[in-house]
Amino acid sequence: MNDLAQEAARLDAADPLAICRSEFLIDDDLAYLDGNSLGALPKAAPARVAQVVQKEWGEQLIASWNDAGWIGLPQKMGSKIAPLIGAQTHEVIATDTTSINLFKLISAALAMRPGRKQVLSEPGNFPSDLYMIEGLEAQGLAERRLAERGDIEAALDENVALLLLTHVHYKTGEMFDMVRLTKAAHDVGALVLWDLSHSAGAVPVDLNGANADFAVGCGYKYLNGGPGAPAFAFVAEGHLANLQQPLSGWMGHNAPFAFEDDYQPAQGVDRLLCSTPSVIAMSALEVGVDLIAMIGMGPLVEKSRALSEFTRAAMARHVPELTCISPADPAQRGSQLSFRHEHSYELCQALIARKVIGDFRAPDVLRVGFAPAYVRYADCARLVSELRDILDSGEWQKPEYAERGAVT
Amino acid sequence: MNDLAQEAARLDAADPLAICRSEFLIDDDLAYLDGNSLGALPKAAPARVAQVVQKEWGEQLIASWNDAGWIGLPQKMGSKIAPLIGAQTHEVIATDTTSINLFKLISAALAMRPGRKQVLSEPGNFPSDLYMIEGLEAQGLAERRLAERGDIEAALDENVALLLLTHVHYKTGEMFDMVRLTKAAHDVGALVLWDLSHSAGAVPVDLNGANADFAVGCGYKYLNGGPGAPAFAFVAEGHLANLQQPLSGWMGHNAPFAFEDDYQPAQGVDRLLCSTPSVIAMSALEVGVDLIAMIGMGPLVEKSRALSEFTRAAMARHVPELTCISPADPAQRGSQLSFRHEHSYELCQALIARKVIGDFRAPDVLRVGFAPAYVRYADCARLVSELRDILDSGEWQKPEYAERGAVT
Repeated sequence: MNDLAQEAARLDAADPLAICRSEFLIDDDLAYLDGNSLGALPKAAPARVAQVVQKEWGEQLIASWNDAGWIGLPQKMGSKIAPLIGAQTHEVIATDTTSINLFKLISAALAMRPGRKQVLSEPGNFPSDLYMIEGLEAQGLAERRLAERGDIEAALDENVALLLLTHVHYKTGEMFDMVRLTKAAHDVGALVLWDLSHSAGAVPVDLNGANADFAVGCGYKYLNGGPGAPAFAFVAEGHLANLQQPLSGWMGHNAPFAFEDDYQPAQGVDRLLCSTPSVIAMSALEVGVDLIAMIGMGPLVEKSRALSEFTRAAMARHVPELTCISPADPAQRGSQLSFRHEHSYELCQALIARKVIGDFRAPDVLRVGFAPAYVRYADCARLVSELRDILDSGEWQKPEYAERGAVT
Repeated sequence: MNDLAQEAARLDAADPLAICRSEFLIDDDLAYLDGNSLGALPKAAPARVAQVVQKEWGEQLIASWNDAGWIGLPQKMGSKIAPLIGAQTHEVIATDTTSINLFKLISAALAMRPGRKQVLSEPGNFPSDLYMIEGLEAQGLAERRLAERGDIEAALDENVALLLLTHVHYKTGEMFDMVRLTKAAHDVGALVLWDLSHSAGAVPVDLNGANADFAVGCGYKYLNGGPGAPAFAFVAEGHLANLQQPLSGWMGHNAPFAFEDDYQPAQGVDRLLCSTPSVIAMSALEVGVDLIAMIGMGPLVEKSRALSEFTRAAMARHVPELTCISPADPAQRGSQLSFRHEHSYELCQALIARKVIGDFRAPDVLRVGFAPAYVRYADCARLVSELRDILDSGEWQKPEYAERGAVT
């Protein structure tokens, strides 16, 4: 274990991104390996949020819709997120939530494939992805079909309107080959919607390079936008003119301030808008996205892979009781590692007590994420050594570590 | 005009709510008559938001889902809003946006009235209300039908699944008789959904007293929740068990953290939830709602009526060129007055330049709102005297007052 800590110290000293951690508010003694659930706070966010609250809202009031550019925040944030995911600036917009954007884009895809009702996904996909298909199924508009990930290509046929997959699996970290699956879907005339919740800001994503049709993603994970931050949605340029979605609220109208009785969709990706933007939340998201954009996806991806490889090897050597269920090839997984153990819940709680923060996903997964902007090799080494000690000492058996809160 | 200012000063001195203005950040020389568009900033909000950002997010990170009660914010806020609108605490939840909640509840109503597809509303209703019906119409699930407000009762028949009305009209301030219209809809077996965006926090609302089925409302107007604040939704107790809505995201699941493949709706009003709550935005909303609850709806309603009566009489006497299109009976209008004038846009801009803030609604309406928690009689007197002066001097003809921003 001393060797491991020394190796980590050596890697941290040589890490060109080491300095980025100081842009986030994280205690020096905190090993935060849960940025894939909730990204850390950028140090610049409190001042930006305070400015929006105190000055733009408090002092300038409604004038801020024009003067502070509130009305354009969804487009502005979309254009900042676009280059992180291989999209053009006018193909992305920040609005609403991941689940709601899924509903819009599943609906849009079904409208583009009349005569087809199937939406194909995998069992075990993130629940909202599956549940939003069910929502449309209950409306009589969709038919949900599930195929195990190895069987998806075989399951694609001319009944499928849309293939809906999460690029990086939230629980296992497995990453789909976006190029291959998108092509397979297109080969049978289906469209593809990628959920980038566990991808954006951490792994290479090239939506245009993959010829993807639609995508959604989350603002509060690797983009560090704060709890429940606004989400984003992508529509490939070629689909923008024909896009129809049922959440046709006033902000998606071509002339919202004309207050007309009949809906006329806005040009382009703006027609995904529905409601007045959540300005305060959007301002926090902007700070998080700006930081990721400043560091750059190339260095972030490189460090993400190095961190997870370091951890995977160390876990295999020092904590073999935990079975890694994430792919061994870093090119086939996201910026996380997931481990199975009968007592993952208790282990996770014991780690938290030692200020090593991962999370638990039912029924038996300990999940650790590597937000490359602020995770250190030393954090990964601590995960391994603390886990070893928690197992050896039997500390995980303390009764308080078995207690569960509303959010597990 | 001196008499008017003196009368205003006398009324302000006698106003038991005068002290409440100090709870908001509004310049003393600002006559803010646009709280019906964007409520003013409660002075306690910046500190609360800063605490959530810095401490709950920054320092406590994911632990805050349980420890800071983030996961329960939608229910907590719902229970605080409920008494302001005559609902039981378990009938209201704060989530998403007004438009999105409209979609959920229109859908839910249609599912409860199989065989009926019509959603009846009035032309000129707030656009999102009309557009969300159109969204369901495009899905083939609804049929939008519009009747002028005087003809609504006659238009109600057994084809109508849902009557969707905005209680206080955003543009004219006209207020529907909730008891009478609800009963008329029920008499033909239709359900009723009330949009309380311009009602909650300003006029008397008794949803249970009116036997209303559903309601939605806005967090950023009289509830002072900040720009784009989360909205709220109400479902009458008797409908909760059968409520189905298509935006079936993971937070509306009966056991979200079981991460099951199949959707099972949560008990009660929680099934209106879809996504991870917007925590920062929700924390600002809480401060605004707490203030309104503390002052109390009784005194707020009384002052609202007194302010608008004072203004209506003064405008009629001193600025007769502007035609009041709001009802003369304060019991039949919301907490606003709307005036028609050919040059309302320019008048509004000229008023803003003199720090009297109302707003313009196309094509020719000057709208002033009376947020009773912080509007003074002196503000109303200034509206009247400044308007008189702007008209008399011809100042409204300055070219810059005709320029329009993205948000008018």
